Amino acid sequence: MPLPRLELYPQFNVTRISHVVLTCRDLDASCAFYGDVLGLVVSRRDHDSAYLRGLEEACHHSLVLRQSEGAAVCKAIGFRVLTDGDLDRAKEFCYRNNIRNEWRETPYQGRTLHLIDGSGSPIELCATMETLPRLMQSFDKFHGGSPQRLDHVQVTAFDIQAACDFYAELGFRLTEYTARDGTDELWGVWLQRKGNPHDIVFSNGRGPRLHHFAYTVPEVRDLIHACDVAASMGCASRMERGPGRHGIGNALFVYFRDPDGHRIELFNTHYQTIDPDDPPIRWDLTDTRRSQLWGLPATRAWFVEATPFEGVEAVEPLLQADPVTLETFLANQM
Amino acid sequence: MPLPRLELYPQFNVTRISHVVLTCRDLDASCAFYGDVLGLVVSRRDHDSAYLRGLEEACHHSLVLRQSEGAAVCKAIGFRVLTDGDLDRAKEFCYRNNIRNEWRETPYQGRTLHLIDGSGSPIELCATMETLPRLMQSFDKFHGGSPQRLDHVQVTAFDIQAACDFYAELGFRLTEYTARDGTDELWGVWLQRKGNPHDIVFSNGRGPRLHHFAYTVPEVRDLIHACDVAASMGCASRMERGPGRHGIGNALFVYFRDPDGHRIELFNTHYQTIDPDDPPIRWDLTDTRRSQLWGLPATRAWFVEATPFEGVEAVEPLLQADPVTLETFLANQM
Amino acid sequence: MPLPRLELYPQFNVTRISHVVLTCRDLDASCAFYGDVLGLVVSRRDHDSAYLRGLEEACHHSLVLRQSEGAAVCKAIGFRVLTDGDLDRAKEFCYRNNIRNEWRETPYQGRTLHLIDGSGSPIELCATMETLPRLMQSFDKFHGGSPQRLDHVQVTAFDIQAACDFYAELGFRLTEYTARDGTDELWGVWLQRKGNPHDIVFSNGRGPRLHHFAYTVPEVRDLIHACDVAASMGCASRMERGPGRHGIGNALFVYFRDPDGHRIELFNTHYQTIDPDDPPIRWDLTDTRRSQLWGLPATRAWFVEATPFEGVEAVEPLLQADPVTLETFLANQM
Amino acid sequence: MPLPRLELYPQFNVTRISHVVLTCRDLDASCAFYGDVLGLVVSRRDHDSAYLRGLEEACHHSLVLRQSEGAAVCKAIGFRVLTDGDLDRAKEFCYRNNIRNEWRETPYQGRTLHLIDGSGSPIELCATMETLPRLMQSFDKFHGGSPQRLDHVQVTAFDIQAACDFYAELGFRLTEYTARDGTDELWGVWLQRKGNPHDIVFSNGRGPRLHHFAYTVPEVRDLIHACDVAASMGCASRMERGPGRHGIGNALFVYFRDPDGHRIELFNTHYQTIDPDDPPIRWDLTDTRRSQLWGLPATRAWFVEATPFEGVEAVEPLLQADPVTLETFLANQM
Repeated sequence: MPLPRLELYPQFNVTRISHVVLTCRDLDASCAFYGDVLGLVVSRRDHDSAYLRGLEEACHHSLVLRQSEGAAVCKAIGFRVLTDGDLDRAKEFCYRNNIRNEWRETPYQGRTLHLIDGSGSPIELCATMETLPRLMQSFDKFHGGSPQRLDHVQVTAFDIQAACDFYAELGFRLTEYTARDGTDELWGVWLQRKGNPHDIVFSNGRGPRLHHFAYTVPEVRDLIHACDVAASMGCASRMERGPGRHGIGNALFVYFRDPDGHRIELFNTHYQTIDPDDPPIRWDLTDTRRSQLWGLPATRAWFVEATPFEGVEAVEPLLQADPVTLETFLANQM
Repeated sequence: MPLPRLELYPQFNVTRISHVVLTCRDLDASCAFYGDVLGLVVSRRDHDSAYLRGLEEACHHSLVLRQSEGAAVCKAIGFRVLTDGDLDRAKEFCYRNNIRNEWRETPYQGRTLHLIDGSGSPIELCATMETLPRLMQSFDKFHGGSPQRLDHVQVTAFDIQAACDFYAELGFRLTEYTARDGTDELWGVWLQRKGNPHDIVFSNGRGPRLHHFAYTVPEVRDLIHACDVAASMGCASRMERGPGRHGIGNALFVYFRDPDGHRIELFNTHYQTIDPDDPPIRWDLTDTRRSQLWGLPATRAWFVEATPFEGVEAVEPLLQADPVTLETFLANQM
Repeated sequence: MPLPRLELYPQFNVTRISHVVLTCRDLDASCAFYGDVLGLVVSRRDHDSAYLRGLEEACHHSLVLRQSEGAAVCKAIGFRVLTDGDLDRAKEFCYRNNIRNEWRETPYQGRTLHLIDGSGSPIELCATMETLPRLMQSFDKFHGGSPQRLDHVQVTAFDIQAACDFYAELGFRLTEYTARDGTDELWGVWLQRKGNPHDIVFSNGRGPRLHHFAYTVPEVRDLIHACDVAASMGCASRMERGPGRHGIGNALFVYFRDPDGHRIELFNTHYQTIDPDDPPIRWDLTDTRRSQLWGLPATRAWFVEATPFEGVEAVEPLLQADPVTLETFLANQM
Repeated sequence: MPLPRLELYPQFNVTRISHVVLTCRDLDASCAFYGDVLGLVVSRRDHDSAYLRGLEEACHHSLVLRQSEGAAVCKAIGFRVLTDGDLDRAKEFCYRNNIRNEWRETPYQGRTLHLIDGSGSPIELCATMETLPRLMQSFDKFHGGSPQRLDHVQVTAFDIQAACDFYAELGFRLTEYTARDGTDELWGVWLQRKGNPHDIVFSNGRGPRLHHFAYTVPEVRDLIHACDVAASMGCASRMERGPGRHGIGNALFVYFRDPDGHRIELFNTHYQTIDPDDPPIRWDLTDTRRSQLWGLPATRAWFVEATPFEGVEAVEPLLQADPVTLETFLANQM
């Protein structure tokens, strides 16, 4: 039975996805893309870093961009824990489980514990972060997609079961999952702590790599407006997929690639899932509705391209799957 | 029988409402209100005039603001005619009907004929106007309510029948009207040339005065966003009525007062009405659904305050009506 | 200092608002209103009870209607706790604090503990409830306002400090509050467990009484559509307030009264608030933006009318306040 | 110079696109698709015909479906003329120009003149049609995409210049057009009488065939809701293209294929174009923004499949073009 037991009393209390740290080759270009086109707020900007947040976020940053010469990578995925005590318990957890970890001084964040998760991805935990005013009532600042807050990240992993087990032990709840038809082989897992479908998602593939991170937008109209504004500002080619509706999570989505190829999803429409008696929703691997309730499949690039983690080598997945890509779909139509 | 005969072959061809010319006491304040808050485009601005248009308009202006020391007034309501020949035919029409008129040199417009209409209001006709690029695909410039185009004006008139007869002779079609219950006494008339419910509306009241002019916005969301942005920019008190839905015209509306008290409506949702066999829709005066399908009635101010026309004295209406105002409605609830 | 200490480790784990139990005099009329007009889903209906839920809810019910001859009352406000063990700890908590309580057999719910909260209101706790399929992807069933889930309740209370202290001890976080200018006298408190602005709100007034309960809708468009559909179905007079935007909670709202006078809010646009370092937002009592960022104030009825709790006598509030009602606002305009 | 002279005083007055007459093999299936899924109103249904209209339309029908055993065809495209006198002038026009035509008795329409247009397509003209109440304020009947009215048709034609010249002589205005880069070879023409971008469009291709007909929907949300409802009702595979935004006409669009393969577009966002001094907008054939401001190109099927006209043989186009299809686009990405 591969579905993890629901851990109601985990060893330390992760509360939510917090932030993503990316490198970029041209900080100006990246700030223009995320700020001017998509509509994120630049909380702070210095010569080699930019800190951005959504319009409703009180935390100092949910997206950190660090200028770098080399290939663009993801340096870490950040989570919040409830208290400083939870950080100490996380440290103990790493010790007991022989997990590589270290304290890292991190600007604008309280004590920050850096560690490697069960998928091999670098994550960092903190209990506090500098706060700034929420701009959700500065409606005159809404533009582009008017992104409100970071909602989740998706990671391609070579061993979904291992990734899932790791997070399940930390109290993450499985809300939806994809399994090969007629088997229990997990192909994708949607895991959450904050009461909606996902804080982190793992999908089967060469990994670990960061597939995308996602911000919520208020309405369908904002999602389409983000596309229109991108087109008006010469960024239409940065749209990679959508608009479409995922069966999983019920999200109306659009995916963009930033100037370094990092993938960002804008979406709306999550649902609340708090009760332990909510059963996880299973989707068969062959049911294309999980990826699109309607519309064309994603291109091959959407399936195979992703952002490397800094210093982490990606490996081929244990389970081999052939997703229905737009290319194979069209080939089958002829 | 007060309903005008449908004149399919009028003596000259008015095609649509074109523009409104207002005076203001502080041009900066007015431009900030119409441009920064509501989202109109400033086509041109000089030391004592500003020309604005909606995002989709190719014409140079649909709103002209002229700085002036005195009381804020409306200098003219502008209509387009199809060709220059129609201007000459309009001139003849005035001559035959003993209507005061004159040619007036008007910046950015072709030959312009100024005349007094059947309600006593100053109107001007032109066949051409300088054009500018439509900005409807400059989505990055959409803000506030993202107003698209001038749609109609409403005038309070002391003799609705006379006003209606004048425009009917010019080929304006009556699409909807209000009449005192059980009678043919016209209390309000919705008249159009361009194929939707109204180019000009006359409502019974001390007049002639300009009650409001109205721009279309793309969606419900834009209407609400205009309210939100107004509040964010310290202009919440400029909202006078709404959001609500008119029964007449089926418009979802919000009314603002500009810094000089001129009233502007933002609305969406008009319908197409082109066929001569579309019957006009009658609303009884006591049916409050004509003014609001739902929501509270308008305040007394909405009913009695309006913009004077330059050099025109307003007089009391022939028909006396007691509209259901918010004040009387609440008094009756107690 | 009246602001409660943030209790991170409460004695038992309440996870979210769960449901509201109301009586009604005509079950058919109530089901028509909530189901056909507003768009809630009827999960089950028998001769004297109806169980309804929002389109995305997996729980059997979030609104229970029980036919009754007498005056319409609220029988209980329901909360979920995480586990059955939390129910036992809640029982101990009542015992230690001398709180009236009892186990009550309740259809479709697991063990249910009924008790009286710090405001004198009857509440009930359960850890499990029968589940049904979420209908969030049955888009063909969306109609009216397409309400998605119960989000919060508001209770008028005679002693806000006492109500606040009670819930703070149970780990509810204060997200926003109203206080008399220059003082610490709490006039309204917004309290939450589920990570957005509110599960339960207490406002100063004759109480305890249920002021309203609120369902989220997906978009601005759904909110306006609910108004339009209500008007189309002859229920325009059931709209009591709005559409408008609350400063507190940033909700775009509409309030309806059901056939028995119970008040229901439809709204969208909450924000996420999970981190203990998010500071509560203070609103001065005289700042009318807290109640409406824009638009007219609520009528007096909105402030003084509410649903009695079954068997609970409402008493006058300790603090006397004179809210700005629409009536007083208009009187001051003249 | 291929752009037609603007004919301001045509020989008879066509006012707007009116209706489309299609055959189908299963009337129940077609009515379910257009009525239950997309949201059109069935005005009348008998054993072998169904008459449908949009929610705001007062005319009896804008879509006629006739059950037929053979291959599904389009029997006629209908236009309205202003008066019965215009029908007689149309008859004279046909006589003078040696155009095949005949009077045809047509249910629910006044006198109807059937003729062959300059593209070889069968069209019919009428001045009157039975009217029915507009349902635009029956908001409880809005569902699917809530289509409001027929807006335009698109025809693939083998000789665009000839088609364009024919309609230009009838007073149709060219609003936008596609031409081979650096030449005047017309590849597509957008022609209108009713004051927005198009009543009829001709695009280069094997023809004449009916490429699609299009209904307006109120908002972006309705367009997406149509997709969602289609998916909920098992019709996701009927979506052929979109959602996307056309550069030409600025329409946000979705294309569906009905059970017989007839193509219907739902879209919003047209603009007003009434003034003769509005210049037509030119798009170079190689500018893919004309077809999609953003998003992927259309599939090959969208370019080559269309509905035959009854009794009309389609022929290859005079000008050969290779559109950028999704298939060629993807092939070039590799």
